Amino acid sequence: MKKEYLMAPGPTPVPPEVLLSMARPIFHHRTPQYQEIFKEVNVGLKYIFQTNNDVLTFASSGTGAMEASVVNFLSPQDKALVVRGGKFGERFGEICESYGIEVLPIDVQWGHPVDPELIKQSLIKNRGVKAVFTTLCETSTGVLNDIESIGKIVSTYDETILVVDAISGLGADDLKTDDWKIDVVVSGSQKGLMIPPGLAFLSVSPKAWEHVNKSRCPRFYFDLKLTKKAYDNNDTPWTPAISLVIALGESLKIIRKESLSNIFLRHRRLAEATRKAIGALGLELFTKSPSNAVTSVYMPQGIDGKNLIKLMRDKYGVTIAGGQGELKGKMFRIAHLGYMNEFDVIVAIAALEMAFKELGYKFSPCTGLAAAQEAFLKC
Amino acid sequence: MKKEYLMAPGPTPVPPEVLLSMARPIFHHRTPQYQEIFKEVNVGLKYIFQTNNDVLTFASSGTGAMEASVVNFLSPQDKALVVRGGKFGERFGEICESYGIEVLPIDVQWGHPVDPELIKQSLIKNRGVKAVFTTLCETSTGVLNDIESIGKIVSTYDETILVVDAISGLGADDLKTDDWKIDVVVSGSQKGLMIPPGLAFLSVSPKAWEHVNKSRCPRFYFDLKLTKKAYDNNDTPWTPAISLVIALGESLKIIRKESLSNIFLRHRRLAEATRKAIGALGLELFTKSPSNAVTSVYMPQGIDGKNLIKLMRDKYGVTIAGGQGELKGKMFRIAHLGYMNEFDVIVAIAALEMAFKELGYKFSPCTGLAAAQEAFLKC
Repeated sequence: MKKEYLMAPGPTPVPPEVLLSMARPIFHHRTPQYQEIFKEVNVGLKYIFQTNNDVLTFASSGTGAMEASVVNFLSPQDKALVVRGGKFGERFGEICESYGIEVLPIDVQWGHPVDPELIKQSLIKNRGVKAVFTTLCETSTGVLNDIESIGKIVSTYDETILVVDAISGLGADDLKTDDWKIDVVVSGSQKGLMIPPGLAFLSVSPKAWEHVNKSRCPRFYFDLKLTKKAYDNNDTPWTPAISLVIALGESLKIIRKESLSNIFLRHRRLAEATRKAIGALGLELFTKSPSNAVTSVYMPQGIDGKNLIKLMRDKYGVTIAGGQGELKGKMFRIAHLGYMNEFDVIVAIAALEMAFKELGYKFSPCTGLAAAQEAFLKC
Repeated sequence: MKKEYLMAPGPTPVPPEVLLSMARPIFHHRTPQYQEIFKEVNVGLKYIFQTNNDVLTFASSGTGAMEASVVNFLSPQDKALVVRGGKFGERFGEICESYGIEVLPIDVQWGHPVDPELIKQSLIKNRGVKAVFTTLCETSTGVLNDIESIGKIVSTYDETILVVDAISGLGADDLKTDDWKIDVVVSGSQKGLMIPPGLAFLSVSPKAWEHVNKSRCPRFYFDLKLTKKAYDNNDTPWTPAISLVIALGESLKIIRKESLSNIFLRHRRLAEATRKAIGALGLELFTKSPSNAVTSVYMPQGIDGKNLIKLMRDKYGVTIAGGQGELKGKMFRIAHLGYMNEFDVIVAIAALEMAFKELGYKFSPCTGLAAAQEAFLKC
C-alpha cells in the first residue's frame, strides 16, 4: 500500500475540497456566476498579499509574472539591481537581459541572504536605478531575505521600485507588502496558495503604476494596462484559467478561516521541528537564514543526493527536492509549505531516516523523529 | 430544476471523466509519473494537429500562444501580412504592432472568408514578407477560411511562413497541418480539446524553426528555444499547469477513441442541423462560409441580442454567445464544439425558440426543432 506524499517546494499538496472544486462542470467566464468568484478571489488575494494594491492574476506559471514584473516597469537600457543568490534571483537577471535592460548584479553566495547594506551602497553608487529585484524565499536555497530592511532603503528613492519574488514564500513567511513598501510582489498558485500550478500573481503599488506609464518594453499577453482596463470592468483581457480560479476561491476560504497569523505560526512550527530533526540526525542546514517554506540540507559526505531523492520517492512515495544547478546531488530540500501539518513532517523525517539507513549514513535510529516530536510537544 | 448548458464557442463543456481527473491528488512534474503523461500528451497533440512537427504546450490562454507565434519568428521592422476579418485576426495585428512589426493588413468584411487570391497578390506586390497570419475559424464571426489554398500560396515563398490561429477550429474543422504546409498552428485548451482554459499550443515546422534562429524580438516566458531545449529532456522550462495537462491526457484518449475523422463528421452533422433549424426559424446566417465549430446568426430586426443572451442564460440555463466588438447586440453565436451531440443542439434550439417567443419574434413554434430533428434523422 504505497501512498504518495508531496514534500517538494512546489507543486504542494492540494486540499481535497479544493481538488473537488475543479471537478465541477465548467461555466463561462463572462457571467455573473464567474464574476462573483472573481471579485471574491481578488479580495482574498489582497488579504494574503497584505496589501490594498491591485493584485492581478495571469494564466501562466510564476515565471510569466516575473516577466510581467520586468516588461511593464522598465525600458531597454534602464538599469536594474538584481540580487542573485540562487536560481530564481538569476532568472530575474536573465529576463532583464532578454529585454535589453542593464543588470547591475549583486551576487550573493548561495545559501546566504543578501546584506541590505549592499543594496544601499549600490543605489548610492549607481544613480538612476529603476528597479531592485530580489526574492523573499529563494526556493533553490531555502534562504529568507530581509525584505523589510530592503523596503526601507528602496522606498527612499522616488524613481526606484522594489520587486519581490514571493512565489514560494507567500503564505509561509511574513510579507507586509504595504507596510514594508514593496511595489511589486510576484507569486504563483502551486505553493502557499495550495492549488495546482497554472496561475501567477502580481501586486502593483501606485508608484509602480507610474513606471508602467513610462515603460517602453514591448509586451502584450502580460501587459498590465490591458489587464487593468479589463479588471475595471470586472473582467480579464484574455480567457482566464477558470477551473484554477475556482480552486483558488476555495483555497482562499480555507486560508481566511485559519487566518494569516495562524498560518505563519504553523509554518514556523513545522519548519522549526524539521530543522531540529535535521540537527539531531547530525546533518547540516544549508543556510543560517532559513525560510519557513522549505528546509535545505547539505548531503552528508559520500552519499549522492540523487540516490536519496529517488529512493524516497520510488520506495517510500515521499517526494522531496534535490539541489538545483550547481547544487545537484549536493543538497536536498524538504518543504513544509501550504497544506501541511505536524504529521507531514513526521512522515518526511521517518522516510528520510529509512532512506539514509539504506544508503549507509550512520546515525542513531529515530533521533530525527524524536527531535521533531519533542519540538511539536513544546509549542 | 435549472440545469446549465454551455453552448458558447469556448469555454466548452468538459466530459465528466476529464473533470474528475483534475480532482486527483497533485503530483510533482519532475517524476517518471508525470513524464509518462507528458510524452503521451505530446503524441496525442500531434494526432489532432495532423502533424509530425513539434507541438509545444504553454501554461497560458490562447492569446499567449498567439504572442509566441509572433515574437519567436519575426523581428522589429519585419513585414507581416495579417488577415483581419474579425476580432482574432485583429489581435494578431495588435500583437505584431506591439513588437514593432510592420503590419500589411488584408481587411476582410466581417462575415466573409478571405479570398486567397488577395494573399497571393499581396505577396507578389510586397517583397520580403516574413509571415502571413490568418485564422481557421474566426471565432468572432464563425467564418471558416480556406487554409488549404492559402497554404499552397504561402509555401511557394521560402522566406514566408504561414501562421494559423486554430484556437476554436481545431478538432471541429479539418486542418491538415503537414499536408497543407502550415508552418505554425496556434490552439487553446478550452474548445475542441474539451478541457478547461489555461493551456495553449503551438506547432512549429522545420521552416518556422529557421525563422526562430533569425528572430530578434525580445521574449522569455514564450521563448521557443528555451521550450524546445527542455522538451528534448522530456521537461518544460517552467512549471507546467499539471492538472490541466492531466485533463488533456484524458480528453486526448477520448478523442483518439472516437477518431479524428468521426469527430469531423459529428461536428459537421451538428453544424448542419443547427443551420437548418436557424433557416427554418426564418433567421439569417451571418456567413456563407461557416465553420463547423459555431453558427453565427443575425438578430432579427427589433430584437436586441443582449436580451436574448441574458434570457437564455438566466431563465433557461443555456449559455450562448453574443456578438463581439461592433457586432454586440446584432448577432448571436451557438457553438456545437467539443463535447457535444445531437441533443445539445436540440436543447439549444428549444431554448432559442422559447426565448424568441418571449421576446416577441414571430415564427411557427417548433419549426426549428423539427428542422434539426429531420436533419439528424437524414444522416
